[in-house]
Amino acid sequence: MATVRLLSDAEAEAIPAVKAVFDDIRATRKTDFINNFWRGLANDPATLKRTWESLKDVMTGETALPPVVQEMIYIAVSTANACSYCIHSHTAAARAKGMTDDQHAELLALIGLAAQTNHLVTGMQIPVDEAFLVEG
Amino acid sequence: MATVRLLSDAEAEAIPAVKAVFDDIRATRKTDFINNFWRGLANDPATLKRTWESLKDVMTGETALPPVVQEMIYIAVSTANACSYCIHSHTAAARAKGMTDDQHAELLALIGLAAQTNHLVTGMQIPVDEAFLVEG
Amino acid sequence: MATVRLLSDAEAEAIPAVKAVFDDIRATRKTDFINNFWRGLANDPATLKRTWESLKDVMTGETALPPVVQEMIYIAVSTANACSYCIHSHTAAARAKGMTDDQHAELLALIGLAAQTNHLVTGMQIPVDEAFLVEG
Amino acid sequence: MATVRLLSDAEAEAIPAVKAVFDDIRATRKTDFINNFWRGLANDPATLKRTWESLKDVMTGETALPPVVQEMIYIAVSTANACSYCIHSHTAAARAKGMTDDQHAELLALIGLAAQTNHLVTGMQIPVDEAFLVEG
Amino acid sequence: MATVRLLSDAEAEAIPAVKAVFDDIRATRKTDFINNFWRGLANDPATLKRTWESLKDVMTGETALPPVVQEMIYIAVSTANACSYCIHSHTAAARAKGMTDDQHAELLALIGLAAQTNHLVTGMQIPVDEAFLVEG
Amino acid sequence: MATVRLLSDAEAEAIPAVKAVFDDIRATRKTDFINNFWRGLANDPATLKRTWESLKDVMTGETALPPVVQEMIYIAVSTANACSYCIHSHTAAARAKGMTDDQHAELLALIGLAAQTNHLVTGMQIPVDEAFLVEG
Repeated sequence: MATVRLLSDAEAEAIPAVKAVFDDIRATRKTDFINNFWRGLANDPATLKRTWESLKDVMTGETALPPVVQEMIYIAVSTANACSYCIHSHTAAARAKGMTDDQHAELLALIGLAAQTNHLVTGMQIPVDEAFLVEG
Repeated sequence: MATVRLLSDAEAEAIPAVKAVFDDIRATRKTDFINNFWRGLANDPATLKRTWESLKDVMTGETALPPVVQEMIYIAVSTANACSYCIHSHTAAARAKGMTDDQHAELLALIGLAAQTNHLVTGMQIPVDEAFLVEG
Repeated sequence: MATVRLLSDAEAEAIPAVKAVFDDIRATRKTDFINNFWRGLANDPATLKRTWESLKDVMTGETALPPVVQEMIYIAVSTANACSYCIHSHTAAARAKGMTDDQHAELLALIGLAAQTNHLVTGMQIPVDEAFLVEG
Repeated sequence: MATVRLLSDAEAEAIPAVKAVFDDIRATRKTDFINNFWRGLANDPATLKRTWESLKDVMTGETALPPVVQEMIYIAVSTANACSYCIHSHTAAARAKGMTDDQHAELLALIGLAAQTNHLVTGMQIPVDEAFLVEG
Repeated sequence: MATVRLLSDAEAEAIPAVKAVFDDIRATRKTDFINNFWRGLANDPATLKRTWESLKDVMTGETALPPVVQEMIYIAVSTANACSYCIHSHTAAARAKGMTDDQHAELLALIGLAAQTNHLVTGMQIPVDEAFLVEG
Repeated sequence: MATVRLLSDAEAEAIPAVKAVFDDIRATRKTDFINNFWRGLANDPATLKRTWESLKDVMTGETALPPVVQEMIYIAVSTANACSYCIHSHTAAARAKGMTDDQHAELLALIGLAAQTNHLVTGMQIPVDEAFLVEG
């Protein structure tokens, strides 16, 4: 159970600022389904709107990375942050956007490998090589 | 300064199990440069060999994801795990494998966005939607 | 299910060192309710006592921050550490101590925002400005 | 050294979308000082603008929590996420907004205590009490 | 529910590369029981094999640390990484390898204490003492 | 540079509550050396005393785990929490208490392995096996 209420469709309809965002999510994603994250955020219409618009800005329209790669990066961060809900929702999204079983398997292997070398590096406190300090 | 010694080339040469891995890193990466991570790991030839071979397995040869995408996933995990060395080394690697400035900017935006929604979801303790529980 | 047993009231009564702490929790909080955290810790009376006394020291009596602010800081740390139990218990405590819906919404927005800028800063490896290095 | 360039004032002036944000930061904060975080983000004017506007929305104008409390929550999240830069910058901001030495000491004690009980709870895998599952 | 399928014994039997690893797990651990982790990993036989062989290398045969200490270190890392499954499985393994209730209690106390001082140190940004910088 | 002042010996001498703790650290550890962590904590004598006494309780006198194992568990948690200072100080302490190079190498390998399987488990969202749910 959440620490906030999850707004029903009827409740969302009754708050114009929430209705506007829910309508836009449905139109943008071409589906009637509004997942629980947005229903929880709807308790705070300003944060709902800001979060949805940030997501829409970065993840829709013309992007530098293919949508399926964006979702895989999302899974990687969510796994390292131990966000169970986020792993479920973005794995579903990655699959819907074309992630194959082989890509999913490789993504998981990479996440595991990165975590391993992250911890080895940190445990040894390895200093950054000069060669990596070339400014971007 | 590291919590372990970083082996010099001369020291690495003197230990056959280390020399073998360093030679393979150089051959595989087509460069003489061995970064500090491997010089620290070389204190434990078995872990050095196991780690390098895992990395080679997952990240070279025929892969399901393009090398530049693999590096971006590596950066995402390393950032969430706050591994400064790893962020530097894999950002350098991603650039060397073709990551553009636009892709880097979008990667960073995605990492930030994912962290934000991870924390919002966790703070609200949102339950996973039935719709996401379709088995892989 | 926990990895340790959760002591019942009867079991707690039977161990004087545990009974003493449970009695003090009840007297301090003016309630009979002892939540599961303390029932788990009761397997180790010394850690139970040390933990409860630390909490009582920092969070009761004369404090520099109002109790409701203390609970909000607790929620912030617990969210970043992905401790589901802690988020539930301290959100309940914050509400009991007067946290309004608006304050909760702003707290969540701040936690999300902080996580986002934390990850952006870490991903870019931004060096600390001279101006911030004024000693406390 | 950062993984991106930190834009100088001259470089920022030359990009209208960056200049607009830097001007707004200066006007809102009533200071000429632009810290390195924004100079790094300026490589991506869209993320710079989105991040600044989110921060301005949540942390300025009429807020539910006093500015100094907002900064302390920011420090709490940044500490749990091990973001060194963020701890320095938000500790400086909290002091500028009136955080006393006593409040800082209590904030640190609370962060430490929360981390301790977070880890104890997680290590014992304590199940959430029914009493905490009252919907928000 | 997992984001991947958990392979049944029949399914595992049908894939030679998976069967070989499951057979080796059963022979090494002297039990028929294959826990869910391996059933999930079995979707990717290469990662299954690599992960099992790494674990076998480090945790069986002649080791520098007693098996029960290895399991306790595993619990410590898994707790800090908030991996619920891992805490359950390695607590069970530690008990099977002889961890007493007193050792478990002390382990939990140490994990809590370390988390507390980790966060205090990070919140204060304490610089490393010269005395600690003696190379390994 | 720290976010708090690090108290010098002269300053510590001048505050009786700090002097008492510093004297006890010196007597207990049989050394004049007081590391920076305590000098930072000394800004808050109550937290200094509480933290030192917790540490002394858990880590000195009659313990269930050998001192060198305690330090290795401390290193494991500190690595997963990315606390650079803590890794340095507890690696030095573990060495002083007898940790061999082989034990250090195995500790690091275990930390890396645990992080890898933690992330694999979390990415796959593996459900806990019934067999692990036997109460402590």
